[in-house]
Amino acid sequence: MNRKMLRYVISWVLKTEGILMAFPAITGALYREREALAYLLCGLFCVGAGFLLSRRKPEDMELYPKDGYVAVALGWVALSVFGCLPFMVTGEIPFFVDALFEIVSGFTTTGSSILTDVEALSHASLFWRSFSHWIGGMGVLVFILAILPMKGGSVMNLMKAESPGPSVSKFVPRVRGTAKILYQIYIVMTIVLILSLLLSGMTLFESLTLSFGAAGTGGFSILNSGCGTYTPVQQWILTIGMILFGVNFNFYYLILCRKFKAAALSQEVRAYFLVILAAIAAITVDIQGVYDTLGETVRHAAFQVGSIITTTGYATTDFNLWPEFSKTILLLLMFIGACAGSTGGGIKVSRVLILLKTVKKEMMSIVHPRSVKQIHFDKRPVEHEVLRSINVFLTVYMTIFAFSLLVISMDEFSLETNFSAVATTFNNIGPGMDKVGPMGNFSEYSPLSKLVLTFDMLAGRLELFPMLILFSPSTWRKRH
Amino acid sequence: MNRKMLRYVISWVLKTEGILMAFPAITGALYREREALAYLLCGLFCVGAGFLLSRRKPEDMELYPKDGYVAVALGWVALSVFGCLPFMVTGEIPFFVDALFEIVSGFTTTGSSILTDVEALSHASLFWRSFSHWIGGMGVLVFILAILPMKGGSVMNLMKAESPGPSVSKFVPRVRGTAKILYQIYIVMTIVLILSLLLSGMTLFESLTLSFGAAGTGGFSILNSGCGTYTPVQQWILTIGMILFGVNFNFYYLILCRKFKAAALSQEVRAYFLVILAAIAAITVDIQGVYDTLGETVRHAAFQVGSIITTTGYATTDFNLWPEFSKTILLLLMFIGACAGSTGGGIKVSRVLILLKTVKKEMMSIVHPRSVKQIHFDKRPVEHEVLRSINVFLTVYMTIFAFSLLVISMDEFSLETNFSAVATTFNNIGPGMDKVGPMGNFSEYSPLSKLVLTFDMLAGRLELFPMLILFSPSTWRKRH
Repeated sequence: MNRKMLRYVISWVLKTEGILMAFPAITGALYREREALAYLLCGLFCVGAGFLLSRRKPEDMELYPKDGYVAVALGWVALSVFGCLPFMVTGEIPFFVDALFEIVSGFTTTGSSILTDVEALSHASLFWRSFSHWIGGMGVLVFILAILPMKGGSVMNLMKAESPGPSVSKFVPRVRGTAKILYQIYIVMTIVLILSLLLSGMTLFESLTLSFGAAGTGGFSILNSGCGTYTPVQQWILTIGMILFGVNFNFYYLILCRKFKAAALSQEVRAYFLVILAAIAAITVDIQGVYDTLGETVRHAAFQVGSIITTTGYATTDFNLWPEFSKTILLLLMFIGACAGSTGGGIKVSRVLILLKTVKKEMMSIVHPRSVKQIHFDKRPVEHEVLRSINVFLTVYMTIFAFSLLVISMDEFSLETNFSAVATTFNNIGPGMDKVGPMGNFSEYSPLSKLVLTFDMLAGRLELFPMLILFSPSTWRKRH
Repeated sequence: MNRKMLRYVISWVLKTEGILMAFPAITGALYREREALAYLLCGLFCVGAGFLLSRRKPEDMELYPKDGYVAVALGWVALSVFGCLPFMVTGEIPFFVDALFEIVSGFTTTGSSILTDVEALSHASLFWRSFSHWIGGMGVLVFILAILPMKGGSVMNLMKAESPGPSVSKFVPRVRGTAKILYQIYIVMTIVLILSLLLSGMTLFESLTLSFGAAGTGGFSILNSGCGTYTPVQQWILTIGMILFGVNFNFYYLILCRKFKAAALSQEVRAYFLVILAAIAAITVDIQGVYDTLGETVRHAAFQVGSIITTTGYATTDFNLWPEFSKTILLLLMFIGACAGSTGGGIKVSRVLILLKTVKKEMMSIVHPRSVKQIHFDKRPVEHEVLRSINVFLTVYMTIFAFSLLVISMDEFSLETNFSAVATTFNNIGPGMDKVGPMGNFSEYSPLSKLVLTFDMLAGRLELFPMLILFSPSTWRKRH
């Protein structure tokens, strides 16, 4: 393992994080809050730590596949541990486990909170919470890749480990170029969303924080009541915003290149919209009578479906009070998740599609034994390696899920609470059901449970393997 | 598809079932119940229908793989539809959907019931319910194979489709011989259990019905209170009995052949006992204080663990009232299930082991890319085909689970009730939690939900594919 290179990558993560802390510091200064100073100091501390780690540039800049996974996992752990410092320094979240949970929930774009009163936070901390969604959404290492010169193979290995979805497609021959294009699309879309919300009459602070949360599919709200108090127009803007950030960014790149036909034929994006429409329709029928008008019913259904399938986690209403059928639909959407190559979490629509295709193929091979069928996705054959890794993904997913459920069940909450707590953190959504529902929070879980759920958020965001490899003994064993 | 041969197999299923109905008829006669007549008439009707179907013996006796799956699925559907007739004729369960649910729950060795008062049933019907566990445990087609002359390839295809577990191992070169040995072990073990219970002071009727339920890992009880009123010794006999019937029968065959070393090295059986001991230990610690003495605590823990992991479903206590941690352990055991090649249900220990091995292999291939590792099980390499089918199994399993949960959630029970209802029927266990807990039942579900859960029981017992292929349109389409 190239340990020097690992240190180098982490040093850049810390330097970047330190600079990004300037934004909450400025916000706090504008609101004349003394918390601004805490962010300034923590920012300087991060930059300082970063420079200490990277005094010498490593001679061997190569990152092998394993190093890529370890670098990404360690990078995210460092990002989180340093990122939660301001919460503790300002005294707003004094305990480390709580502060870590909150910032990991931010960076992994989960949006679950241990806070019982969000509105008591300073503007600086509210900004940092929402900003962490935006930073984590597209991936902080992708960002560093876009600005740092590194070898092509190394870059690919880092990006493979950080990006969501079964396979990373390179838009342009050089991976650095891909990272740049990704961030350009991301920034432009975020700005459009901010402007739309401003035009709808929202304040700048609200527009910024809500847009960061929607863009990163995070879901931290700055109000205790979530998004319930916004106007119908603002709620519709957010609904559309969330759904669009859950689309595979490859789709937008194809549109940018004017390859409209290829974009329209994307199986994942089509299935994604189909599932969304079907879920909205089913829930609208199921919850009729709960709200006054059909318009209100459709709006709440669409908002919650868009929020849950993209794993954002904003809520305009307490869906905990909806009938069981609608709640079960939302629960299933939690697992499906958004498209691969978006900022959303979950198992991902393309993985679900490919898994279902393997089932169809297996059945065909029993019914017609002589038919040799290869699985195709977007008209291209799916390689055996990809299939295998998706299958292993499902197994790892179920295993981590089972273990997490077992550990947190020691806290004696109901099965509905525990099951949805694991589902919502592991899929990076935010609210669960019952005690951890849209109007509840995670504050009552024990420190051990909070650590397990923190691990789940990181494992879910990094798609399982980086975190597993980081904690696997054989990774750190020296080979003879 | 060889439709004549399908008809021939089903005719034998019906003839066998008709003859087996003589036993409840005799039981009823001994107790001077008029229900005995119903069983006699239904038995004659089954035999008659069987003879009508098999007037001509098919010239082509060959069953291809697809035919094997369809024959097994159709055979089980016929078995169930004709098997529920006595319940309706006696008027004890007047509605078809209810009667079908009850008998499918019997044959699939599930043990879930729609009855609110079991003790109101006649002895004849109580006997038939428990006997259906014993018939379904080892598989009715395996039984027919043991007595009917058929071609080797056809037999293998039937057995593959009916037997639980990732692969069928032939004990002896001829498959018919294997079926015979299986049934011999099954019968001897059942007789030993019956005698043990008789010696412990149980009545003959109780010993018979309880042993049928334990041998088939079914779980229908003849008392409303389940097994809570039996003496500690009787409960321990049942615990050991259930656990032994959850062991891979291959293990017993090896012991019969005096291959003790090979038997002791069986990875699946070792893991099975390890999981049982760990679960008993964890639950004993967790529930201390609930019962008076340590002996009582261990006994209840062991009984419930043995009952749930083997998917039997007997209960000596209402584990619904246990702490959440113990309940979660039981919930996870429901999914693991018993060993392959036993009478138990669930995903099966060997499948879980092989899935975990694929994870380890995938991680190794990331950490040490040049290491090519094949997965071994019991020191033999696992073929790619077997791996693929296990992975597809997991996907199909999750998919059916999700759809079932969605449909039954329309009945508006709690998530805990619905989730455990699907888990318990799909894994052929019996009791779930909350409303369908050990002291509850399935009577309040709507007919649609009951049909879905009935499908789940059959799909779970036949390991998914036969039922899927039976209902797949491409199975019945004529090829050009």
